[in-house]
This record gives sequence, C-alpha cells and structure tokens, in this order.
Amino acid sequence: MHVLSERRLDTGVLEREFTLGEIPGILWTPAATSSPAPLILLSPPPLGMRMAYDRLAARARHAAVDGFASAAIELPGCGGRPLMPVVEQARTAMRSAMAAGGPVPGEVVDSLVLPLVDAAVPEWQLALDTLLSLPELRGPVGFSGGVISIGTRLAAVEPRVRAAVLFAGSFIPRSVFEEARRVAIPLHVLLQWDDAGNDRQASLDLFDAFGSEEKTLHANMGGHTGVPAFAGDAARQFFTRHLA
Amino acid sequence: MHVLSERRLDTGVLEREFTLGEIPGILWTPAATSSPAPLILLSPPPLGMRMAYDRLAARARHAAVDGFASAAIELPGCGGRPLMPVVEQARTAMRSAMAAGGPVPGEVVDSLVLPLVDAAVPEWQLALDTLLSLPELRGPVGFSGGVISIGTRLAAVEPRVRAAVLFAGSFIPRSVFEEARRVAIPLHVLLQWDDAGNDRQASLDLFDAFGSEEKTLHANMGGHTGVPAFAGDAARQFFTRHLA
Repeated sequence: MHVLSERRLDTGVLEREFTLGEIPGILWTPAATSSPAPLILLSPPPLGMRMAYDRLAARARHAAVDGFASAAIELPGCGGRPLMPVVEQARTAMRSAMAAGGPVPGEVVDSLVLPLVDAAVPEWQLALDTLLSLPELRGPVGFSGGVISIGTRLAAVEPRVRAAVLFAGSFIPRSVFEEARRVAIPLHVLLQWDDAGNDRQASLDLFDAFGSEEKTLHANMGGHTGVPAFAGDAARQFFTRHLA
Repeated sequence: MHVLSERRLDTGVLEREFTLGEIPGILWTPAATSSPAPLILLSPPPLGMRMAYDRLAARARHAAVDGFASAAIELPGCGGRPLMPVVEQARTAMRSAMAAGGPVPGEVVDSLVLPLVDAAVPEWQLALDTLLSLPELRGPVGFSGGVISIGTRLAAVEPRVRAAVLFAGSFIPRSVFEEARRVAIPLHVLLQWDDAGNDRQASLDLFDAFGSEEKTLHANMGGHTGVPAFAGDAARQFFTRHLA
C-alpha cells in the first residue's frame, strides 16, 4: 500500500489516497483514533471513484461520526484503470439492445457483470488483507455499495465481511441468484422503487433469494440516485447495530 | 367520550380506557404534559384490542418517549363488539377456500374487508373529533396499524391524518388499489417478507399504487407477528420526522 497524499477534512477526518499495486483507493479514518476503528468498504459505482467522490466522501464522513473508518478502491476496468475488453463489448451490446427497446439478453448481462465480479472480489480481499494490517483499523468489516453482484459474491465468500448494505439497481446475472442463497450475514438492501432503468422484479427476486436470517429491504422514491437522507440514516443505524 | 378507568404505567404514561358511544378505546398520553402532544392512532388487528393489548401498549410507551400520545379504538365487529353478519359469512367462506387449498375469491375478500373499512373509517373520524378536542392533544395526527385497507381509506379521505405507518399482511380488495392512488401523505409500509399467510405480490402492488411522493417500504424477516425491534424504531423515526 503506497500512500499518495493525505489531508484532514473539515470534520477532522483523515483522508488518504493510496495505491495498492495498480489499484487506486481512498481511506478515511475518524478524527479521534484512540482505538482501532471497524472498517466499512465503500464500493464505488462503475462510473468511477472520481465521479462518485462527493457521495463516497459524504458516506465516509457520516461513518466517521459513527466511529467507523471507510475505504474505497476503484473497480477493475473503471475510472481510468485498464479497460476489460469483454466488459466493454458487453456494454456496447447492452446499449444496442436498450436503444432497440428490447430486453438485454442474459448472455450480455453475464458478460457485462461476471468478469467484473470475478476481478473485483479478489481485489477487495487483497485490500482487506492490507487495510486490516494497519494499527488504526480492525474488523468486523462492513460492505456498502453498488453493483449488487459484487456485494453478493463478497458477502458469500469473505468471512471478514459481517454485514452489508447493498444497492439494487444494476443488471443481475442468473448465476448470482444461486450465490445469493449462500449469503448468511445480515443484509440491508436499498431499492429505489421508481428507478426507471432498473429491473425492479429482478431486485425483489434477488432479495428473496438471499439466505440471510436477517435481511431488510428499504424501498424508497427519488429515482436512481435520489436515495433520501433518511434512508442513508437507516443504513448507518444498520452498521452501528452490527459493527459497533 | 366516557372515561371508564385511568392509571399510570410504570413509565409515567397515563392510560385511560374509555367508550365513545358503543366503541371501546384506550388513550395513552405522555407523562410530561406541559404542551399538547401530537396524536398517533393505533389501529388494532381484527383479533381485538384485548388480545393485542401488549403490542399496542408497547407501541404507545415508545410513542410517549418520543412525545406523542396514542389512541386505539376497537374495530367494528371485533373484540366483543356486535358481529357484522356479512363479514362473519365472508370469514367462513375464506376459511373454507383456504382449507380447500385454493385462492380466496375476490368477492369473498370484498365482503370480508370492505364492510369493515366502511364502518371503521367514520369511527376513526369520530374519535378524532373527540380526542382532538381534549386540551392535552393536538394535530398533526399519525395513523399506525393493521388492516391496510382501513389505513389506505383513512389516509385518502381524512386531512387531519398527515403520515401513516401501514402493516401489509391482510387481504386487499381490488377497489382499494384505486383508493391507494389518491393517497398523497408520507407513508411507511411494513411488510413481513416471510409472512406465509400474506399475498406478498398484492402487498407490493399496493405499495406501487400509492400516490404519495414520499413512500417507503420496509420488508423484514420474522413471520407475520415477528416485526424486528429495529423496524419498530424506524417507524418511530418516521413519525418523529413528520409529526414532531
């Protein structure tokens, strides 16, 4: 882990930009660091960490108030990282299908999402290895973010992740429904009910598939990016219940 | 309004049993009564106020901590009130249909629910007239309770009700979906995802039909009566946002 820069935000939160091999990342730690803080992984959307910075940093500031550190790493093929050709081809095919007004074929969804999941999950696990070796961080770890298939896989395979906030709103390969049945940790799923670009039924079916004994779905209005502030508060309370 | 009895609960909440004409009811007011408290109507389930007393009183105690008064009145035909023959016939037909493993016909659902809604909503309005004339109570008023068709009608027609927590889990007549489109107040809908006796799709369709700009669905595990404590907390926060 190579720290590129560090600065204090107005609230005293320490923000460090780093690279982990080829992977850019940001770590936010609370101002008061008398004891190691539990860590929340903030998964950025595919549009990239820079474009999503304001939203990620806002969530990190809130998490710091609650006593948690946060970390984001750039997704493979996103935000200036080397493109993944199979994903780019699938993205073109997806846009063509949508422009033609038709559904996006299952093979296209698989090619769009599964290579990203396959590449991203080991990177998150590598990031965990590194971040949890820092004296100011400790488990249990929470995961919070978009691309629900990545969160599903990580929740299913990574025992250090003890609770997850998942955002419904991206295409879901059929095989992910099977992975969902193997998830057992507490889940808090956010669904924007009036997200015109999202397949609401697929999101509900995925929620149904999760094997977790504690799982909660919060559906709200406000469109794809219009998650209400009170829904953010509820997600914070979920992490406080499970990680504090 | 005729007060039958009054007592202080351990938390200092004043509990008064009353009758309003033929209708039994309970009013809970916070211990500190320096200024009038906003009122939450706690609609009991059809099994009756006595059977549901512990749950109602627990919600009233929590509401009092948040500064709210609460009131419950017995539903028509329930809890020892004179039976409604058409509803009783429909209940028998419902049980027969369910015992035969088939769906409950729409006409049976209509006969089971609509007469109850038609009778209950004016009673809640009468109760509001009376309760809001007490010096220790004031609007805005919240509604919280089961039999989602009653809450839907009241939310659509009664302007004093400004926010509602609705419990999905009862049969829904088709006409209620049309009434739902006319609801404009903030809604917080609780759905027990694994409530085996509930038509989940109908609950989701009703949530979709509500016309409210702010509407939230909280789906949880735990079966019909197993609403988790954190879901109750979220409902309290909803009322605090809208009534305090």
